Amino acid sequence: MSQTPDNAVRTARTETVRAYVEQHRAAFLDELAEWLRIPSVSAQPDRAEDVRRSADWLADRLAGTGFPTVEVWETDGAPAVFAEWPSGEPDAPTVLVYGHHDVQPAAREDGWHTEPFEPTVIDGRMYARGASDDKGQVFFHTLGVRAHLAATGRTAPAVNLKLLVEGEEESGSPHFRALVEERAGRLATDIVIVSDTGMWSETTPTVCTGMRGVADCEIDLYGPDQDIHSGSFGGAVPNPATVAGRIVAALHDAEERVAIPGFYEGVTELSEAERELIAELPFDETGWLTTAKSHGTLGEAGFSTLERVWARPTAEVNGIGGGYQGPGGKTIVPASAHLKLSFRLVAGQDPAHIEKAVRAWLAGLVPAGVRYEIVFGAPTRPCLTPLDHPALKAVAGAMSLAFDGAKVRYTREGGSGPAADLQDVLGAPVLFLGISVPSDGWHAPNEKVELDLLMKGVEATAHLWGDLPAAL
Amino acid sequence: MSQTPDNAVRTARTETVRAYVEQHRAAFLDELAEWLRIPSVSAQPDRAEDVRRSADWLADRLAGTGFPTVEVWETDGAPAVFAEWPSGEPDAPTVLVYGHHDVQPAAREDGWHTEPFEPTVIDGRMYARGASDDKGQVFFHTLGVRAHLAATGRTAPAVNLKLLVEGEEESGSPHFRALVEERAGRLATDIVIVSDTGMWSETTPTVCTGMRGVADCEIDLYGPDQDIHSGSFGGAVPNPATVAGRIVAALHDAEERVAIPGFYEGVTELSEAERELIAELPFDETGWLTTAKSHGTLGEAGFSTLERVWARPTAEVNGIGGGYQGPGGKTIVPASAHLKLSFRLVAGQDPAHIEKAVRAWLAGLVPAGVRYEIVFGAPTRPCLTPLDHPALKAVAGAMSLAFDGAKVRYTREGGSGPAADLQDVLGAPVLFLGISVPSDGWHAPNEKVELDLLMKGVEATAHLWGDLPAAL
Repeated sequence: MSQTPDNAVRTARTETVRAYVEQHRAAFLDELAEWLRIPSVSAQPDRAEDVRRSADWLADRLAGTGFPTVEVWETDGAPAVFAEWPSGEPDAPTVLVYGHHDVQPAAREDGWHTEPFEPTVIDGRMYARGASDDKGQVFFHTLGVRAHLAATGRTAPAVNLKLLVEGEEESGSPHFRALVEERAGRLATDIVIVSDTGMWSETTPTVCTGMRGVADCEIDLYGPDQDIHSGSFGGAVPNPATVAGRIVAALHDAEERVAIPGFYEGVTELSEAERELIAELPFDETGWLTTAKSHGTLGEAGFSTLERVWARPTAEVNGIGGGYQGPGGKTIVPASAHLKLSFRLVAGQDPAHIEKAVRAWLAGLVPAGVRYEIVFGAPTRPCLTPLDHPALKAVAGAMSLAFDGAKVRYTREGGSGPAADLQDVLGAPVLFLGISVPSDGWHAPNEKVELDLLMKGVEATAHLWGDLPAAL
Repeated sequence: MSQTPDNAVRTARTETVRAYVEQHRAAFLDELAEWLRIPSVSAQPDRAEDVRRSADWLADRLAGTGFPTVEVWETDGAPAVFAEWPSGEPDAPTVLVYGHHDVQPAAREDGWHTEPFEPTVIDGRMYARGASDDKGQVFFHTLGVRAHLAATGRTAPAVNLKLLVEGEEESGSPHFRALVEERAGRLATDIVIVSDTGMWSETTPTVCTGMRGVADCEIDLYGPDQDIHSGSFGGAVPNPATVAGRIVAALHDAEERVAIPGFYEGVTELSEAERELIAELPFDETGWLTTAKSHGTLGEAGFSTLERVWARPTAEVNGIGGGYQGPGGKTIVPASAHLKLSFRLVAGQDPAHIEKAVRAWLAGLVPAGVRYEIVFGAPTRPCLTPLDHPALKAVAGAMSLAFDGAKVRYTREGGSGPAADLQDVLGAPVLFLGISVPSDGWHAPNEKVELDLLMKGVEATAHLWGDLPAAL
């Protein structure tokens, strides 16, 4: 099959990128290992200095990579690292890469086969806490931008490249939104690239197109002033634990749709094209159930399991409690009951509207004689990039090149993350470029990164920075 | 209004009884105070010897009263006291009186104004733990039977009188049923008189006609093998806390009737006459709500509050728990959830049938992927004596005489008690003769008994033993 000139150029560039990456692979991995030795556990107060050391180390490395501007940004918690490398081209688009330099806790005795903060390469995999989540995936951007320059002969990237690497993601990003709001001017961008996600499998280059958002609330229900005797009073006064149960039952209809009036208002429905792409994925439900440690599937009628976790909003009971929970029985009408509910949201849903809908729905469920309080946490918005968005096409193209032309699959992320704050505050679409795989063991013992896939990440970004200006 | 000769005889007897009671009142109260000084707290292991001392003291006093047979019966827990005084008449009916000699814990610092185990008489009330629940109400039988003999000129009662005074009622009577089964021959009786209940008010002589029974169960629901991420899996696997809520909601229909199929099978419905008697009671719902420490009424449609707690079966959530119950939120699908349910039962309901009905109902509510276990405790049967039962009429007549001809009201007890075991094992109807009033403070600080009412109890039993042979 003869190649078009364009393809020939692309192939040449692919080879240049790959050669550059191969040439610098060993030094790159040595440097990554150095970073991984810093136990930047944001959840552990006694590691605060390590988190700071991690930020300083990264800032130093980014400066060494060539970023003309590198700053450590203070927050009310752990510091973030910001770096900027302007293109110099007048019409160059701006890209903001998001990642994090803090890691989950880890201790050898949790079941690690190697020291979690002493990176160890075995059979093409580097084992260390943070190898995949997220230091490895942040760090491939350093070599990626150099490979991009090498392949294009440029001295500055074809895009205005910005990096924001926060230090509290594993602690729930408590100060991230405030930081983004405060620095919105510096962070202004056309698109956001999140490098903190994964692929469908080792052999399936994947582009994630969105994440669900989340809104959560706590509901406290108060009946009698204290637990009262169920013989003397039972059957004649409202029981707050019964009310809690009825609220839970009213969350869904018989088809497992969320039954809160107005809940689905504005939902961006899956297109037929997306449903087909999801249906094409080689989904193994038995394997998925094993990962879910669950023993059956149940969800909204008319949708597959993947559609349910990726593209449909949900109402979930995270916790429920009331009355006597100790051993044996106690014949009481409980004084109170408590619910923790969360709602995963998809594109088109407005957390403020959801809160209003839940409040109105709840008010109709609590009988006279029961007092209630409902408190909402700060919501995380959903984000979704349409399949035909030019930036998404560019990301898919770059991934395909890195994987030697393999067909790119499209996934979504069922969870929710701080990237949505970037979308919200900066008004830019969020795209995901990640090379982690399900076996990488995020948050678990023996976290690792596949070194060959890490190099694919380097290659993909090298291609992407070159292709984005024409795409956008 | 002229009296019939029969009434004249009765009035004479009433006066004889009252004179006898007045004559012995001071000595009787001194003896009761002596008994109340023994802190027979069955729930406190270090009081076990006091409980035994209480049994011995009572046995000694009953022998002194004239009971020819008095025995302390051992159980696997605290001892009970049995006493028997045969009538000598060939056709005399047999009566078994039930009470208990153990008491609730009490300490001065709980809010007592006097020493709980140093009986103190103030304004015609004796303050002490057990004064009303139940030593006072057991002890009036000693003077009652002597007054009966004095008024009738007999040397033995007109009924075969048996007393069974247990020592573990305040600890849930764990060995009572076994004791009754073991001693069923000795306890054989025509009727059971329970002296461990109260009256509507100080001025309203009351006869309680029944108690509700109770069946209880614990339900454990298991979903994922551990708490799982609600973002990654939520909406696609069953949530056991949601299932728990749905079970709770399915307990009742929209009219607050219990919705478990077959639950009402066999229920003895209130007669119109009983409903009228209940409606006639001067019920103050506001005051009742204050006692219930509740802020509204809610119950089965078509029934009043008193009917709901006295005469209707219920399904109550005593406890519910599942998932995360700590501060803040946690976006999980919980691994498990747990329910504690209890069902108050009324006459005509069979606990074995209820258990079967609940199990069948539950099986239809738990989705695939959730495993469940349900365990029932030992049930307590309901008991009810029809309004036209001759023994009930005799008890009402005796109460009326003690209260100078005042109209007797009929109540029921919403709670459940070990008396039902006597009904079950001995096959005898259970009647209630009690003189406690709501202000007596059972299980609370400053428990007391109204001395004048205590004497009414003495009088009522004195009349009852005389009237029962003709009634039965």
